[in-house]
Amino acid sequence: MTRNARFRDKEKGAEAIMPGASEEPASDTRRRFLRGGAALAGAAVAGGGGIVVARAEKLEIPPSNKEPGRIIEPKVYGLPSKYEAHVKRNRTDVLVNKQNLSDWSMTPLQHQLGIVTPNGLFYERHHAGIPDIDPDKHKLVIHGMVRQPLEFSMNDLMRYPSVSPFYFMECSGNGLTDWLKVASKTVQQTHGLLSCAQWTGVPLSSLLDEAGIDPKAKWMVFEGADGAAHCRSIPIEKAMKDTLLVYAMNGERLRPENGYPLRAFVPGWEGNVSVKWLRRIKVGDQPWNFRSETARYTDPMPNGKWRQFSFEMECKSVITRPSGGMKMYGPGFYKIEGFAWSGNGTIKAVDVTVDGGKTWREARLEEPVLDKCLTRFRMPWQWDGAPAKIASRAVDSTGYVQPTVADIAKVRAITGFVQHHNGIFPWSIGPDGEVKNAIA
Amino acid sequence: MTRNARFRDKEKGAEAIMPGASEEPASDTRRRFLRGGAALAGAAVAGGGGIVVARAEKLEIPPSNKEPGRIIEPKVYGLPSKYEAHVKRNRTDVLVNKQNLSDWSMTPLQHQLGIVTPNGLFYERHHAGIPDIDPDKHKLVIHGMVRQPLEFSMNDLMRYPSVSPFYFMECSGNGLTDWLKVASKTVQQTHGLLSCAQWTGVPLSSLLDEAGIDPKAKWMVFEGADGAAHCRSIPIEKAMKDTLLVYAMNGERLRPENGYPLRAFVPGWEGNVSVKWLRRIKVGDQPWNFRSETARYTDPMPNGKWRQFSFEMECKSVITRPSGGMKMYGPGFYKIEGFAWSGNGTIKAVDVTVDGGKTWREARLEEPVLDKCLTRFRMPWQWDGAPAKIASRAVDSTGYVQPTVADIAKVRAITGFVQHHNGIFPWSIGPDGEVKNAIA
Repeated sequence: MTRNARFRDKEKGAEAIMPGASEEPASDTRRRFLRGGAALAGAAVAGGGGIVVARAEKLEIPPSNKEPGRIIEPKVYGLPSKYEAHVKRNRTDVLVNKQNLSDWSMTPLQHQLGIVTPNGLFYERHHAGIPDIDPDKHKLVIHGMVRQPLEFSMNDLMRYPSVSPFYFMECSGNGLTDWLKVASKTVQQTHGLLSCAQWTGVPLSSLLDEAGIDPKAKWMVFEGADGAAHCRSIPIEKAMKDTLLVYAMNGERLRPENGYPLRAFVPGWEGNVSVKWLRRIKVGDQPWNFRSETARYTDPMPNGKWRQFSFEMECKSVITRPSGGMKMYGPGFYKIEGFAWSGNGTIKAVDVTVDGGKTWREARLEEPVLDKCLTRFRMPWQWDGAPAKIASRAVDSTGYVQPTVADIAKVRAITGFVQHHNGIFPWSIGPDGEVKNAIA
Repeated sequence: MTRNARFRDKEKGAEAIMPGASEEPASDTRRRFLRGGAALAGAAVAGGGGIVVARAEKLEIPPSNKEPGRIIEPKVYGLPSKYEAHVKRNRTDVLVNKQNLSDWSMTPLQHQLGIVTPNGLFYERHHAGIPDIDPDKHKLVIHGMVRQPLEFSMNDLMRYPSVSPFYFMECSGNGLTDWLKVASKTVQQTHGLLSCAQWTGVPLSSLLDEAGIDPKAKWMVFEGADGAAHCRSIPIEKAMKDTLLVYAMNGERLRPENGYPLRAFVPGWEGNVSVKWLRRIKVGDQPWNFRSETARYTDPMPNGKWRQFSFEMECKSVITRPSGGMKMYGPGFYKIEGFAWSGNGTIKAVDVTVDGGKTWREARLEEPVLDKCLTRFRMPWQWDGAPAKIASRAVDSTGYVQPTVADIAKVRAITGFVQHHNGIFPWSIGPDGEVKNAIA
C-alpha cells in the first residue's frame, strides 16, 4: 500500500538567532508587579466560579534556586519521594492474621490520583505466600477435554497477539471488615482490596481455539504454581468471552506478588478466580468444588445455605477524599472525590449525599470512563463547618443501583466471612473536621 | 434527586454446601488425559489461524508446588521481580556526558507492554540535577500581567477540580543520536526519551481565569525551582487550551525526578516546556528568549538560521519488538509491535514494511487509542529466515504522514544538536536473527 506524501514541515516559529537572551525574566517586570500587587495581605482571593482557595498574602517571589540537585543514577528503577513514604500498601491492622502464608495487603486508595494503581501499591492476596518462579523455566499446560493438549513457555505465549485493556480488580472479601463492624479507620482499611491496572496478555479464547474444546465440556480449572496450588473452576462461556492470560501490568512484567510470570485475568469477577502463577488449565464438564468454592468465596443466604459461584463484583463506589483519618482545613470549598466501578459494565452515574442519605446530587464522572474499570467522580462542596455524613451511590450500564446495607440484608445473611459487600459506605465529618468511618 | 430502586440480588449460583470437595482436580481425569494424549512428542501443533507457537512435546504435568512462598511485608512499596532486573532506565551509553548536572536517562521501550510507562522507568531530563523540595513548603505564584496575583500551597492546588488524561511525553532531542549516526543499539538508546502516563492535575485555564489575564498579554513564563531555574516562554493560547498543573502521574504523586511536587504539563509539546518543580508563572506580552529558546531547543534550517518555538512533537512511530539487541528464535510466526504517537492528535494508521520500504502493510491499532498518547500497533509476520529490514510509518488525525529522513533533510538542516527528529526508523534482521539499528 502507498500513502500520498502528506508530510509537511512546521509553519510556526521565527527563524532568527536572538542574541542577548536572558536566563531569567527581566527584573523590571518584577518591580512592576510589586508596585501593582502590594495590597493583598490577609484576604482570600475571590474570583471565577467561587472556588478560590488561593491566597496571595504578602506575595513575595523568593529568589530562584541556584543549588544543584541530585544527579541521575545510571541503570536505576526509580522510587517515590521520601516525602511520600507514608503511601504504602499495608497488611490489615484490623484483623490480626496468625498464619502469614494466607494473607493480604491493601491499597492506599486515599492517596490514589487517577485510575491507575501503581504496581508498588497494588493490593495482594496470597494463600501460601509468594512463589519464586524463573520465567525461563515456567510452563503453562492446557489439557483435559480438548482435541489437542498444548504446552507453552513464556516466550511462546509472548509471541501471540496481545491486548492491553484497563480493568479494576477487587477481592470478593473487600468490605469484609465493615460487615464485622470492626473499626477500620481509613479507606485503605475499608476498601483497599481494590486496585486497577492496564493488563497485557493473550485472549484465552485464541489458545482454547487451538486446543479445540470438546463440545461436551462446560468448565475448566485454573491452577496456580503457588504452594497452595490455588485452583478455581471457571465456566467456559466466561473463559471464551474476555478472559486473558496476562504477563504484564501497567507497562511492565507482572510483579511477583501479582502472579509473575503469568496469571489469569477474569474481567469484572472476584479477584481470586484470576489465578496467579498460572501453570495449568484443565477443561472438564463440571465444576471441581474446591475448598475455595465451598468453604470460602461463597455467600451466606438467609436460609442458612451458602451460594456458590457468584463471581461478579457488582456495582460499587466509595468516597476517597475526604475519607477516614483525614481532617478538614475548616469551612470552605472542597471537592468530594472517589471511585466507582462495576464488574458488569461501565459506570453511568454516581450520586453523592452530604446529609446522610436524605438528599443526593449527581457527581461529575471523570474521563476516561471504561468498561469494568475504576471511574473517578467528583462533586464540589461548600462545607459550612457543621457535622455531616457523606456517601456515594453508583449506577452502572445495566441500570443496577448500588444498594444500602439494609437492601443487602433483605436478600443475604450478614454473618461470618461475608463476601461481595457492595453496600453504600458513609463517612462522618465532625465539628472538629475529623473524618471517620460511619458504618452503622 | 432520587433513584428508583433498581438493586437486585444475583440470580446466578447454586445454594448448596458441597461436602467432600477436593483440593485438586480428580486424579482419574489426569490418567484419562495421559492415555489419550501420549503421541504428541516432537511436533509443533497446528491449528486456528496458523499462528501456533505452542509445542506439546512429551507433555508432562509436574506435581503441584507444595512449598510455601515469601510472606507479605507490612507497609511496603513493592518492586519488580529479580528476574526483571535488566529492565531499567539508563543514562545514555552513547554520548558521554561530562557534567552530570545536565543529564538524561532513557526508558527501556523494548520492555514496555501497554501504553503506561511505569514511574520507575519514566525518562528523565534535568538541567541541574533533581532538587529536594518539601511539598509542605512549596508555593506556586502566578503574577505579571494579571488583575490579581495568586499564591498557592500544594494543599490549595489539590482542592481544585482536577482531570486525569493519558498523554505521552517526549524530549525534543529524542532521536538526536541517530542524526549524529552514533551506533545506538537498542530502542531504549534510539527512542527512549519517550514515555507515557496518566497525569492528574488542575487545568491552568481555571487558575488564569481567577488571576484575570491582561488583554494585552500574549505569553507567559514557567519557572522551575531547580538549580538551573529552567524557564520556558509559553503562548497564552496553549496555556488556556489544555495545559495542566500536574501533581500526580500514574495514580501517585509525581516522582522527584519528574517534578515533585508540581510541574507544568503541556500536552503534545516537547518535554522541556512542561517545566518541572514549577514555582512561578509570570504573564507578559512577548516571549523571554531564554538560552533554552535560542541556544537550545531550536531547529537548524537550510539557510543557516535556527527556528525558535517549534513546540509540537509531530507524528512518529517506532518498532519496539523485534528491535535492536534482540535475536529472532528462528523462522516462524512473530508479531511486529511498536508505538505510534502524535502531538497533534490521535493516531489514525500505522504501516509496516519488512522489505526496507518497498511495500507497506497497515498494522492493527490496539485500544485504547487516545489523543496525544502512545498508541500500540502490531502486525503478524511469518519470518522466512532471510535478511529483512523492518520499519513503521504513522499517520495522525490531521492527515500528517511520518516522513523519511530524506523528506526531513529537504526542509531542515541536519547538523549539530538537531531537535524534533521524527523520521521513519529501520531495524535490520540478519540471517543469524540478530536485530540491529539500520539507520543509514
